[in-house]
Amino acid sequence: MKFLKHDQTAVFALGGLGEIGKNTYAVQYQDEIIVIDAGIKFPEDELLGIDYVIPDYTYLVRNEEKIKGLFITHGHEDHIGGIPYLLRQVNIPIYGGKLALGLIKNKLEEHGLLRKARLYEIKEDDVIQFKNTSVSFYRTTHSIPDAYGIVVKTPQGQIVHTGDFKFDFTPVGEPANLTKMAEIGKEGVLCLLSDSTNAEVPNFTLSERRVGDSIHEIFRKVEGRIIFATFASNIHRLQQVVEAAVANGRKVAVFGRSMEAAIEIGQDLGYIHCPKDTFIEPSQVNRMPADRTVILCTGSQGEPMAALSRIANGTHRQIQIIPGDTVIFSSSPIPGNTVSVSRTINMLYRAGAEVIYGPLTDIHTSGHGGQQEQKLMLRLMKPKFFMPIHGEYRMQRMHAKLAIDCGVAEENCFILDNGDVLALTEDEGTVGGKVPSGSVYIDGNGIGDIGNIVLRDRRILSEEGLVIVVVSIDMKEFKIAAGPDIISRGFVYMRESSDLISDAQALIATHLSKVMERKTTQWSEIKNEITDTLAPFLYEKTKRKPMILPIIMEV
Amino acid sequence: MKFLKHDQTAVFALGGLGEIGKNTYAVQYQDEIIVIDAGIKFPEDELLGIDYVIPDYTYLVRNEEKIKGLFITHGHEDHIGGIPYLLRQVNIPIYGGKLALGLIKNKLEEHGLLRKARLYEIKEDDVIQFKNTSVSFYRTTHSIPDAYGIVVKTPQGQIVHTGDFKFDFTPVGEPANLTKMAEIGKEGVLCLLSDSTNAEVPNFTLSERRVGDSIHEIFRKVEGRIIFATFASNIHRLQQVVEAAVANGRKVAVFGRSMEAAIEIGQDLGYIHCPKDTFIEPSQVNRMPADRTVILCTGSQGEPMAALSRIANGTHRQIQIIPGDTVIFSSSPIPGNTVSVSRTINMLYRAGAEVIYGPLTDIHTSGHGGQQEQKLMLRLMKPKFFMPIHGEYRMQRMHAKLAIDCGVAEENCFILDNGDVLALTEDEGTVGGKVPSGSVYIDGNGIGDIGNIVLRDRRILSEEGLVIVVVSIDMKEFKIAAGPDIISRGFVYMRESSDLISDAQALIATHLSKVMERKTTQWSEIKNEITDTLAPFLYEKTKRKPMILPIIMEV
Repeated sequence: MKFLKHDQTAVFALGGLGEIGKNTYAVQYQDEIIVIDAGIKFPEDELLGIDYVIPDYTYLVRNEEKIKGLFITHGHEDHIGGIPYLLRQVNIPIYGGKLALGLIKNKLEEHGLLRKARLYEIKEDDVIQFKNTSVSFYRTTHSIPDAYGIVVKTPQGQIVHTGDFKFDFTPVGEPANLTKMAEIGKEGVLCLLSDSTNAEVPNFTLSERRVGDSIHEIFRKVEGRIIFATFASNIHRLQQVVEAAVANGRKVAVFGRSMEAAIEIGQDLGYIHCPKDTFIEPSQVNRMPADRTVILCTGSQGEPMAALSRIANGTHRQIQIIPGDTVIFSSSPIPGNTVSVSRTINMLYRAGAEVIYGPLTDIHTSGHGGQQEQKLMLRLMKPKFFMPIHGEYRMQRMHAKLAIDCGVAEENCFILDNGDVLALTEDEGTVGGKVPSGSVYIDGNGIGDIGNIVLRDRRILSEEGLVIVVVSIDMKEFKIAAGPDIISRGFVYMRESSDLISDAQALIATHLSKVMERKTTQWSEIKNEITDTLAPFLYEKTKRKPMILPIIMEV
Repeated sequence: MKFLKHDQTAVFALGGLGEIGKNTYAVQYQDEIIVIDAGIKFPEDELLGIDYVIPDYTYLVRNEEKIKGLFITHGHEDHIGGIPYLLRQVNIPIYGGKLALGLIKNKLEEHGLLRKARLYEIKEDDVIQFKNTSVSFYRTTHSIPDAYGIVVKTPQGQIVHTGDFKFDFTPVGEPANLTKMAEIGKEGVLCLLSDSTNAEVPNFTLSERRVGDSIHEIFRKVEGRIIFATFASNIHRLQQVVEAAVANGRKVAVFGRSMEAAIEIGQDLGYIHCPKDTFIEPSQVNRMPADRTVILCTGSQGEPMAALSRIANGTHRQIQIIPGDTVIFSSSPIPGNTVSVSRTINMLYRAGAEVIYGPLTDIHTSGHGGQQEQKLMLRLMKPKFFMPIHGEYRMQRMHAKLAIDCGVAEENCFILDNGDVLALTEDEGTVGGKVPSGSVYIDGNGIGDIGNIVLRDRRILSEEGLVIVVVSIDMKEFKIAAGPDIISRGFVYMRESSDLISDAQALIATHLSKVMERKTTQWSEIKNEITDTLAPFLYEKTKRKPMILPIIMEV
């Protein structure tokens, strides 16, 4: 990092600023780089066919020998999903809590990368010491167990990264370590990087315990089958479902691959505990009395292939909705999923189920703290400099306002973009320089091979379809040898458009004959003539602009 | 309607049940059909490239001679947008309020259908009398002026269709006619068809007057330019903006085609009134002091081509965001638009504007009444039979529950689907028979020519792209004369995938040589051989499944 002075600590993000996802942050002092999280982002709708988005790792690849380790705050996909892609490019050790490490192991195994990975489990009081820097941890509460905040100590002071957090004073697992946070604050925090996700939410986030109470209430009242859909990674929620099931004499059957994996890892690592015979096989459900069963499943976001969606639309192999079923959405729809969640709810109602969902039911709570919790974090840490992280620009902006309200000097708040480097001394913060950042698209096996040209083509094809014109040309006689033939996909229903197609063929044939008289041998010219003739004709007839692909064969 | 008995009145919908949009309802007694509304629906994301969706009008076409008229409740697109398509198929008179009729005229003119249309303006006290039925009206409040409920009187009793409504006791225009509703109820309502859109909202909808107060407060405080985005059709909202502008010494410039049209029609018909010099030309904005201007524009739903979106992303010809600008979203995002609205807000913040949005600001209110208003309607109308209309299944269901709470017998509540016919006598309601219903897709000029095959192709193309294999075959010698050539779009970036492509070519060439040895003359067999060879190869290499199009030319 050429622009960094000798006595400066650099703080920057490769992903996670101004966006929800691909969280990847770094703290650098001289030749020591501490990387925090390596997440993926789920693509927006216009990234047609893209599976995931990861950050550009160029800076880390170029500086591999300086990287001391990747430190993981918690095991959500937007914080660990990028690890297999990162590890393919750099060989660095990974430090994380018990659950995060368990999930990372599964992931690396799937990618065939587990054997050579160096994984280290951390506990809250561990301190990982390097030459000039050290890394320590403090326990937080979030919608997944084993969530930590990370403290990077540098010669300029402590850099604190909150990870994702809420303050749940009555959580299902361990409470957040307020004492340790206060001590860190007392020791002095140079810069706080804090979770901005719910900066627009004025209230204090509901406790997981309250959600547990709602689950118990519902389980007590409901007489038929219960179908419970939630995020597989919310293992405390799963534990609460299991507890309510046991308390009400119900057995639990698990559906959906990620839910099965979560139950298994949750039991292995001791987060989920219940009598041995609590879980039953999926095949047993239909032989049990309705009021003795809970179906715990994926699909709370209306994902088309998930268990609940298939149950709702009647295509699930084992489970059909029967009147008397109660379906619980213990989740809130992520923006972009509202329509598919709605559709699933409607299908369930139509199939005869009762459905419990929505914010009025206290059946779900966010994993992110609202404004009061963000201010509590600020008052505990009392940072000199502040950098709102995770979340859209408007949330970062609101979070910076809260920091100013809590005593951080306005000029010490930095709303940055991915790639911006914040250079800190004990007294001064400046934004200087840029590291490469940006989005890399993953589609199937391909990492970064899909760019804007391919996406533009997919967009045109998706909205207007395709018309292919094939023509064989005799380049000695300058005449059409065969064709033109027209093939289309996604444009019009060919069988009902034979007039349109034959008119188009005739038009091209007539026009090409004229072009041939010019005795051109330039294929590109002939192709352009075909496109320029056909496009206005099709637009006039259909008001559509399909992609036109002329294919010329020489005979 | 063969299944209808002589003394029955039939009530049914061609669109608008279990969905938001394409509202089209009908009441039939013997040979008299009263049609209520003819709306369009905006397509869901998976209807790739589709512009609008209309109902299947088959039943109306088959019974054209029985139709007494199309009666319009109000001028929103989901109630009038289908008119041009319907009028192309049946020649029927249209009755509507002043504003709805003005908007319909514009629409018919655009479609070249105005000359032969028979349009009749109705006033609240009009009664349109037919042989056995009559149609009358009562004034309601909604997010567009001139909204009416419609009463169809048949020998079995009165059928009341609420249109879209809220109860705004302090509206900007005329209040709802509670007295007339009470009289209709007193006279006796056989069946009520009532707006279910906000059946999940427990509270009473905010008055438009309260929104006006918020607008005035903001206009008083803001010192820089004001950019105000809202729905063009909410003409009362536009009037409130104009009033606040005048009160604060600001001139109003109008941007966006639909907003210009709304201001023009609003002034022509007397809904928008202000001093003559209130409006300025768009070109004058940049010469005015910032605190003397209001920019009134479209784009409050984040629509990519609307004025506000172009202002936000810096591509608007005349307006750039300058620090000090305040942008007001006087709207709430329709589900499905949340992501694009968010993006627009973030861009505006980044460009330096202050942005006011969201439910906490009282800067917008719904046009649909919540549960309290729906119950008020039920108590006024006291219907014997009840049919919740407009809205998704779960909303219809909730609305039916409210009706039962308000004294309608459970067996007299009918949650129907489009096409279901409710047959009513004075004492009895039964669901019997079906009329054709369903969705017809409009894409460009094409009405109903896009079906599932075309949509399926568009979906595959959008997610995986396309690979074309062209090969010339000498059918006398049974050998490849030229090619195979491979062309792709939306699959991989060709320039960086030359190895993949040349390997694929070699694979096909080798395989086709073997096929040729069989001396097959079946093109379809050769095509299948190409697809079956290439698909697994490409999947293994890329984990993608593009559409494969083999094209064979015979020489």
